[in-house]
Amino acid sequence: MKLIRFGQPGEEKPGVVTADGSFDVSAFGEDYGEKFFATNGLERLAQWWAANAGTAPRIPDNTRLGAPIQRPSKIICIGLNYADHAKESNMQIPTEPIVFFKSTSSLVGPNDNLIIPKNSKKTDWEVELAVVIDKKATYVEEKDAMDYVAGYALHNDYSEREFQLERNGQWVKGKSADTFAPLGPWLVTKDEVKDVNNLGIWLSLNGKKVQNGTTANLIFSVPFLVSYLSQFMSLLPGDVISTGTPAGVGLGMNPQVYIKEGDVIELGIDGLGTSKQTAFAWK
Amino acid sequence: MKLIRFGQPGEEKPGVVTADGSFDVSAFGEDYGEKFFATNGLERLAQWWAANAGTAPRIPDNTRLGAPIQRPSKIICIGLNYADHAKESNMQIPTEPIVFFKSTSSLVGPNDNLIIPKNSKKTDWEVELAVVIDKKATYVEEKDAMDYVAGYALHNDYSEREFQLERNGQWVKGKSADTFAPLGPWLVTKDEVKDVNNLGIWLSLNGKKVQNGTTANLIFSVPFLVSYLSQFMSLLPGDVISTGTPAGVGLGMNPQVYIKEGDVIELGIDGLGTSKQTAFAWK
Repeated sequence: MKLIRFGQPGEEKPGVVTADGSFDVSAFGEDYGEKFFATNGLERLAQWWAANAGTAPRIPDNTRLGAPIQRPSKIICIGLNYADHAKESNMQIPTEPIVFFKSTSSLVGPNDNLIIPKNSKKTDWEVELAVVIDKKATYVEEKDAMDYVAGYALHNDYSEREFQLERNGQWVKGKSADTFAPLGPWLVTKDEVKDVNNLGIWLSLNGKKVQNGTTANLIFSVPFLVSYLSQFMSLLPGDVISTGTPAGVGLGMNPQVYIKEGDVIELGIDGLGTSKQTAFAWK
Repeated sequence: MKLIRFGQPGEEKPGVVTADGSFDVSAFGEDYGEKFFATNGLERLAQWWAANAGTAPRIPDNTRLGAPIQRPSKIICIGLNYADHAKESNMQIPTEPIVFFKSTSSLVGPNDNLIIPKNSKKTDWEVELAVVIDKKATYVEEKDAMDYVAGYALHNDYSEREFQLERNGQWVKGKSADTFAPLGPWLVTKDEVKDVNNLGIWLSLNGKKVQNGTTANLIFSVPFLVSYLSQFMSLLPGDVISTGTPAGVGLGMNPQVYIKEGDVIELGIDGLGTSKQTAFAWK
């Protein structure tokens, strides 16, 4: 199943996407948030859809999409999880996952505008595979970890490199501005993704492909990460784990390239769709 | 006003504390969360209380308290914000605030048990002044910052030092275990705190005072922090800023001292009440 949320910011309604198009499932009566996932929502939605597909209204083309899930309790990011990106960042390949948080207030729809923060000179892109948690995970073993995964989504982990790296410690400072976490278009349930560790992942800046990798190069795999993180904190239903970015970010270029007003950023992951953001300066 | 939430975990009801005791204000009809603060809830509650105080049921003694606010969108912590604590940690006094996040899933009531995480050898305490945000703050100037503050609460920023400092980067890993953020007893509205930058702040371990400071020694003041953080992210109504801990944590002792099963931790801040946690091993 592919889940979407659509409508104006803060007023999104739930929908599903099938081979026939996009459909409004407001009649199901629940939004895609912690309570939905915690109460076996994906299975209940599939059952509801099987019985009610014929009555669901079609969503008009060009309808704005929100993030495919409600604001989660946390967005957990993994740093330097592709060897080529660690190298371009002049950092060591980690011996165990580097973990940082991104504010959940940075979450926006997949095609919403990027607002370059006030006083930013180094806003950068990072295409990432995001994992959405299905049920509460505490001290989960790697062999059981996939039972706790709802599915996957495309994520652009926008990063202000000066705020992140040059403003006295802890990366969250450069990861948390408004609009810095476009998620979606879809939440694709895990049954629809044959091999999450073998997906093409790319990003282009103004039509030129700058990131072009594969999740086969993830240093730490999805089940490992779910298990690992659950040793340090409880993962709640609807929480997001963003698994890191491959090489090709602006920080790693020579000379470095950062986003300026009017830039268009497009990105995608095999089977998870594409998204597109246009950059505006903060006003 | 002093706000509390009481009842079983996950089923807390709102209350207020006055000189006459603690009262159930469920009849007000709202819990203390983002929506409450965003819609001028503190003022509306004060008006409701003025009209309805006589009808509010008294809360029985020994009722469990929850955190005095619903789970916020973020718990933002400030590192090394007292010079004496920076020194005992063998770290430099920061030139600008060190910012890290704590998972909101770590939030518990002020007197709930501390669960020492599985595989933890270095669970430590940190008494802190927590600030609760009243309205959305983005690019706020320091002179206006106090307009965005709802009030204050006592917080114990429990920290697993091995997870935080020895497990490959970014402190959030050692700050986010379940039960690591006991908050309260009260949210004290800012009008009740005469000078937030001059409050005694202390913590005792098994009856022996190990932290004994004053918020007069904060390197970065409350209004500065609200303004500073709002340059990097939007602070949402109900969000928490924990302002750092004075000297006297276990990490800074020689030899170092960490929490073991059965330990009793008591803490307090002038005017913000006291809290008490008993440590249990994870089972």
